[in-house]
Amino acid sequence: MPTFKLTLAYDGTDFVGWQRQAAGVSIQGLLEDACRELDGREVPVTGAGRTDAGVHALGQVAGASIVRRMRAASLVSAINARLPDSVRVVDASEVAGTFQPRFHARSKTYRYRIWNRDVLSPFERRYAWHLPAPELDVEAMAAAASLLEGRHDFASMQSVGSDVGSTERTVFSSRIIEAGDPSPEAWSTAWQPWKDWPPGFIVYEVSGDGFLRHMVRTIVGTLAEVGRGRHPVAWVRDVLDAKNRSRAGPTAPAEGLFLVRVDYP
Amino acid sequence: MPTFKLTLAYDGTDFVGWQRQAAGVSIQGLLEDACRELDGREVPVTGAGRTDAGVHALGQVAGASIVRRMRAASLVSAINARLPDSVRVVDASEVAGTFQPRFHARSKTYRYRIWNRDVLSPFERRYAWHLPAPELDVEAMAAAASLLEGRHDFASMQSVGSDVGSTERTVFSSRIIEAGDPSPEAWSTAWQPWKDWPPGFIVYEVSGDGFLRHMVRTIVGTLAEVGRGRHPVAWVRDVLDAKNRSRAGPTAPAEGLFLVRVDYP
Repeated sequence: MPTFKLTLAYDGTDFVGWQRQAAGVSIQGLLEDACRELDGREVPVTGAGRTDAGVHALGQVAGASIVRRMRAASLVSAINARLPDSVRVVDASEVAGTFQPRFHARSKTYRYRIWNRDVLSPFERRYAWHLPAPELDVEAMAAAASLLEGRHDFASMQSVGSDVGSTERTVFSSRIIEAGDPSPEAWSTAWQPWKDWPPGFIVYEVSGDGFLRHMVRTIVGTLAEVGRGRHPVAWVRDVLDAKNRSRAGPTAPAEGLFLVRVDYP
Repeated sequence: MPTFKLTLAYDGTDFVGWQRQAAGVSIQGLLEDACRELDGREVPVTGAGRTDAGVHALGQVAGASIVRRMRAASLVSAINARLPDSVRVVDASEVAGTFQPRFHARSKTYRYRIWNRDVLSPFERRYAWHLPAPELDVEAMAAAASLLEGRHDFASMQSVGSDVGSTERTVFSSRIIEAGDPSPEAWSTAWQPWKDWPPGFIVYEVSGDGFLRHMVRTIVGTLAEVGRGRHPVAWVRDVLDAKNRSRAGPTAPAEGLFLVRVDYP
């Protein structure tokens, strides 16, 4: 029975998240339903990252074993034909039957998008955290972000009540990758959706060997505190050292977060 | 009583179009409701272009006269506070009381986005016409598009049953402005929404002194026929000469169309 690695993109706005739950529509549930219909049997689908309700993906990875003999390209079409258009399989490839998307992942990359102008574009309302004035101090945020690189105990950055073994994780890269020109003139006359990065955006990207629950959103909420000038850059180090969630900033909302990529050895 | 020129962006997906209608939610209706609430009286709002149901705008222009004394920036905030987040006033400026957004416009610019790959990105499903394989001949489409520049009778390019005076219009510019790399490798690994133009896109842009009903969508449906190789480039000239809607291609769907800009002398 061949096993496939599926690469998925989805708009998470209307879902309860990756994981199948008692109520509501989940990405995992949609994929398992599509695969069951296709294969005439129950097909468990496992994912690399459990994205929360409202979180998006450009390159989530899932694994599924399908009895029916199919080429990878046909499998992409067949599954997509059974999914809503807000969830797409963008790629499929056959892998070893032992493939475990979550445990074999070497690195995951998330991106978080902040819109730092008074008027939020209607085309961004599902895909960014709207933080109107004051203008955030992007340099301070970038400096604070870089302090998270390396091996750290991220206990302060996980959601309250999480119960995992170790809270140590290695962050390979933690950077502000884009900060657009926030002048109103540039925005009202030059903004072309998707062509150029819309001015007013601050985009944070983080790669690591694993992420605790709500870790990226807590990091972003913490960086925003620095960007607003409420805390100095070095405060981020104090937050980590405290190993206490109450010391970090608020959890940034789900809509700005994208699971960009999962890398395997 | 000061008159304001309002610049508007909206995601047209969930609306019946610009114009107020007996049933359904219109952009004009939302704006008139917001202005009435703000000004304590009926406020007629006129628009530069009557975008159809599902058509989007980056720079629609409207005019409204407001009795209450307000600075332009306050007016932007006050109206936006009374609109759904899918419709935004992005700019306001005071103009002469004689301002008529439609009749004083010197030029309008529309953009139409086609996604020419098998898998449509979930983030584009509301904002592009999905034309899967075969790969469109972009060079032929560009050559055909340029034949529309100049003064022509566009009777073949308006919706059936339209009854306007003259069907002559001047097209200042008619071009394919972007055509992305359609290789699947580039797409699945490098696609970053909004940062780079996603590979697989074909984007058409047209500016003119006025547009007949469904004219841009009929032009795009006609260009797509050329792109698919069903007709040669020169056929577009025959379509114009026929002055008969049945000779042109099908009307492309609303979701790919954006009113980008309205220019005034």
